[in-house]
This record gives sequence, structure tokens and C-alpha cells, in this order.
Amino acid sequence: MRDGAEFDTIRALMARWGDLAVDIGDDAAVLAPSADGTRVVSVDACVEDVHFRRAWISAREVGVRAAVAALSDLAAMGARAEYVLIAFVIPEAWREQLSDVADGMGAVIREAGARIVGGNLSRGAVFSITTTVIGRARRVVSRSGAREGDLVVVTGLLGGPGAAIQAWTAGENPTVWSRGRFAAPAPRWAEGEALAAAGATAMIDLSDGLSGDARHLAAASGVRLLLDAARVPAGPGIAPEVAMQSGEEYELLACLPASAYEALQSRWETCSARPLTVVGVVGAGHDAAGSADAESRRGFDHFASPKFTR
Amino acid sequence: MRDGAEFDTIRALMARWGDLAVDIGDDAAVLAPSADGTRVVSVDACVEDVHFRRAWISAREVGVRAAVAALSDLAAMGARAEYVLIAFVIPEAWREQLSDVADGMGAVIREAGARIVGGNLSRGAVFSITTTVIGRARRVVSRSGAREGDLVVVTGLLGGPGAAIQAWTAGENPTVWSRGRFAAPAPRWAEGEALAAAGATAMIDLSDGLSGDARHLAAASGVRLLLDAARVPAGPGIAPEVAMQSGEEYELLACLPASAYEALQSRWETCSARPLTVVGVVGAGHDAAGSADAESRRGFDHFASPKFTR
Repeated sequence: MRDGAEFDTIRALMARWGDLAVDIGDDAAVLAPSADGTRVVSVDACVEDVHFRRAWISAREVGVRAAVAALSDLAAMGARAEYVLIAFVIPEAWREQLSDVADGMGAVIREAGARIVGGNLSRGAVFSITTTVIGRARRVVSRSGAREGDLVVVTGLLGGPGAAIQAWTAGENPTVWSRGRFAAPAPRWAEGEALAAAGATAMIDLSDGLSGDARHLAAASGVRLLLDAARVPAGPGIAPEVAMQSGEEYELLACLPASAYEALQSRWETCSARPLTVVGVVGAGHDAAGSADAESRRGFDHFASPKFTR
Repeated sequence: MRDGAEFDTIRALMARWGDLAVDIGDDAAVLAPSADGTRVVSVDACVEDVHFRRAWISAREVGVRAAVAALSDLAAMGARAEYVLIAFVIPEAWREQLSDVADGMGAVIREAGARIVGGNLSRGAVFSITTTVIGRARRVVSRSGAREGDLVVVTGLLGGPGAAIQAWTAGENPTVWSRGRFAAPAPRWAEGEALAAAGATAMIDLSDGLSGDARHLAAASGVRLLLDAARVPAGPGIAPEVAMQSGEEYELLACLPASAYEALQSRWETCSARPLTVVGVVGAGHDAAGSADAESRRGFDHFASPKFTR
């Protein structure tokens, strides 16, 4: 599905389900709060030839990316992962490679401090991994709390995955940096927790690209995100428009009051080895589609896989 | 994957993951217990041309079956469903039918008293639904507690789904009863809770067939399940061997002490409109493969989709 089609589909599903599916539209669903934090849950699918091509990356990297794509949604809520369930659909041709996929997923899940508590195996014509992640947050940050005047910040350097796909699609080799950003991303646990603790009002992980995800956050918050393309932190040799639209970055985009940003910035180096960059400001009002920058309306739609998690 | 191949794959995955994936092998994973019950979670996939064929059932029925397959794993733990997340992979040809699929899932989830809190949409060449279910049990019943001397009981009448598939595969029409059992099964919530409350020592839902699921339970419990084929409650016009091997029944197989069975039997009619039938007894010892009945070693492998939920 392309462009707005997936969101039309989500709207149609919501219309069908009515009050059976309420408050959907965040990176992860918030379950009941408890004394030791609020439990959050999310699901993400990784489908061959939709989310990756086998010629581009190793089987182990397929596993890394699938696990990171799912876990990053917890980081974007300010949560840490606790439990993972993995459903594989496995064509015969993938049987031999499954151990390497498992190793890649395992490494990411171990690093996250979570455990694999279940899953499902099915045969099928197309390889896919659907990963359910359950975590806990001291302070949950949704997509919907951004307020006029908040600063818009982003972690890390952007554009690597987009540049890697551009290179592969053109029959060229991506740079080592770009390839690494596509093949071996990582959830931003420490950054997500630090932003949540600092008082972030809204947060999202960059899976559809800065431009697209800024629109999602703006729509959820009922605001405009005014992004300054010149401030977007691009990786080495990356064009600004690629940095703006590159998806599956798994960096975090957050909004927070200027005073909270200043306090956080002064101790950011103790949280993260990556930069925290102000890329814009939250403006009043919003248009129906969710407005980010007028010039960059197209997100990372060729690999789109939208969530409808509550 | 066929026969033992899927279990070899699960063993290979477990070997890779080591202590990252512990205590796996039940219908649902048990999360932390709390004052108001223990939370359990499970995931199940439903893949076109693996778990169903579009020519056999309607789009709405596809949705019903996908939801039931996932939710039944909670019923088999003695739990009730609370939250559902749904990940769709949607080929273009399925776009128009998605609302009907959603209606079928929604009806089952509503009936269960649960809510849809999230999901994921992805395009892809093969239609699939991967459903994550989260529930709560007052008393969790695993697969692993069966003890020598326990009675083995099963809910309902078996063989419908197997007979329906046999008919379709032979180019014939199944009976109305058989078709209904395949196309519109239901999780056995009341029966699962009643068996749990009555003191069931082990329980599993019949997704691979009585013969196959008895082996799974026997292996998990380290016992033998001695089944009496003559006692298996077959549906109208169903041959005993079909009733023994028919999968995706979503009836419950449980073990419990004779005294507990007698107490439960005396009030069963207040729990369920379906029969509760003693089909065997738990014997000592066990063989590595998990022994059920020696004559019926083959489960419902042509539609196998084994769980490795903790």
C-alpha cells in the first residue's frame, strides 16, 4: 500500500470496530498502570520484499532489523522492554537461515534486557516475522501531548537507511555508514527514557521518516510541527532531503518545553553518545492531514508499514 | 512444514536463544502475577493457503477463525481475554475484503469481552493475520501438570473441521455441521474457567487434533495419555479416526483428578451446553516424542502451526 492508502485502510477498520478499538494511534498500547510502572505493548511485522530484500542484508541482519523495528516502538513511549513474542512465517527456502535470523533477534532482545516468552511458527510462501513486544514505562509519553511553543528535537544523525536503499536500488554499494544504519539499527532506550524523564510532551520513533513521522505526531497532538530543514542532522555525505525522508531510522523525535530541553541538553552526554538536535518548534492549529513541513509531504512510503497501536 | 519438522525448528530456535527464551512450550506465556489474577499472552498466525483457502469460507469467516485461533489459547490456560493486537499483511486483492475480515474478528473479540488496542498493517504478497492476545486468569492451568491417575476429558463433539476439509479437498460439500465447526468455531471461555476452577492439572486447546495435542500435553507433563478411541465424542456422521485427528477444533482437552471430575460433572450443565467426555486416563512414564495413543500418531499436520509460547 502506498501514500494515504494505508491510513484509509486503518480508518475503515476503526469504523468497522467502533468502540471495540478505542484510543488507537500510538507507537504502543498502554495497558493498566501499576505501582511499578505502566505496561505498554506493540506489534510490528517485517515482510520479505516489503521491509527488506534478502540480497541487501544477511539473515542475521534481517533478525536484527525485525527486533529493532518492534522494540523501538517501546523506546518511543519512554518504556523498557520486558517480554517478546515472535511469529515466523517460513518458506522452505528460509529454513536453513532461520538460526541466523534467530541470532540477530536474540542479540537485540538480550541487549534490551528482555526475554522471549513465546511465539508461533507457520509455513507460508513469503517469509515474515511479526514481533510483539511488552514493556514498562515509569512515565509514558504518547504522540498526542505536544503543545504550542514546545521545541522539536531529534536524536542521532539521519538519512543512512534512505541513502542505503537509494544506492542498492541504483545498483550501487552504499557507504559503510549508511549500510550500517539500515542493517544494524538499535532502539534508543536510554534516549527515550531520558526524554520521558525530562518532561517530553510527545514522542515517536522515526520509522516512516522525519517528515512523515512529524506529520503523525502533529496529527495526534492537533498541532503543527514547523521543521527547519537546515537544522536536520544529516549523516556523513547525506543530502538534507534524504535525511528528511529516510525511514526506519529508529531515532526518536520528541517535543518538549524549552526549559526542559535546556536542562536535558546540559546532561545529554551522560545519556547518549548521539547528538540531540533541535529541528523545529510546535506551532498552533493543525490541518487535517497533520502538517509538518509543507515542502516535504512525502514520507518513507515505499516501505510503509503503519501502526495502529493504541 | 510437516510432521516433526516444525518441532525440530522450535528446538533449533531454543538452542540458539538459550536462557533468553525460558519455559517456553505452553498455549500462552505467563507474565507477572498480580492481586487480581495472572496475566497471560499468546500470538497466533493465520496464513492464506496454509490455514484456510479462500474458496472454502467467506472473508468474515476468515476473520472469525483467526481471532478464535488466537483467543482459544487463552481459554486453554483458564484465562479470559482483555486486549488484542492485530497485524495484517494485505495483498491488493484483499483490500476490498478487509472490512468483512475485520467484522468477523470484531464479533469474536466483542463476544470475548476484550478490546483491540493496536496492530500493524503491511502490504505483502500473501494475506495473513497475526493476532496477539493478552488475558488474565484467576488460576492458570499449563500443559505440564498432568499426574498419573488423572482422568483425561474433552469438551464438545470432535471431527467437524477435519471432515469439512476432507470434503472440500475431495471436491464435495461438507455437512452443515462440519462446515460450521470449521468456519465458525468459538473459544471455550466458560469451559476453560470451569475446568481451571475445578482443579484441572493440565489443559490444552485442540488446534493440532486430539491425537497430536494429547502428545503435546503428555510431553510437557512427562506422562503418557492413554486415550480410548471408542470414547472420543465424534460429531454427527464423523468417523472415529477423523474425530481423533481433526485439528482447529478449539475444544479443550484437560486432565484432572477423578474426584474433581465428578464434582465438575455434577454441575457441568450450568457451565456449558456441550458435553464433557472422559476419553482416557493419565499413565506413568513417557517417551521422548510424547505418547498419546500408539495407533494415532499423526496429528493435524497438513495445517500445522505450532506454538512455542512459554
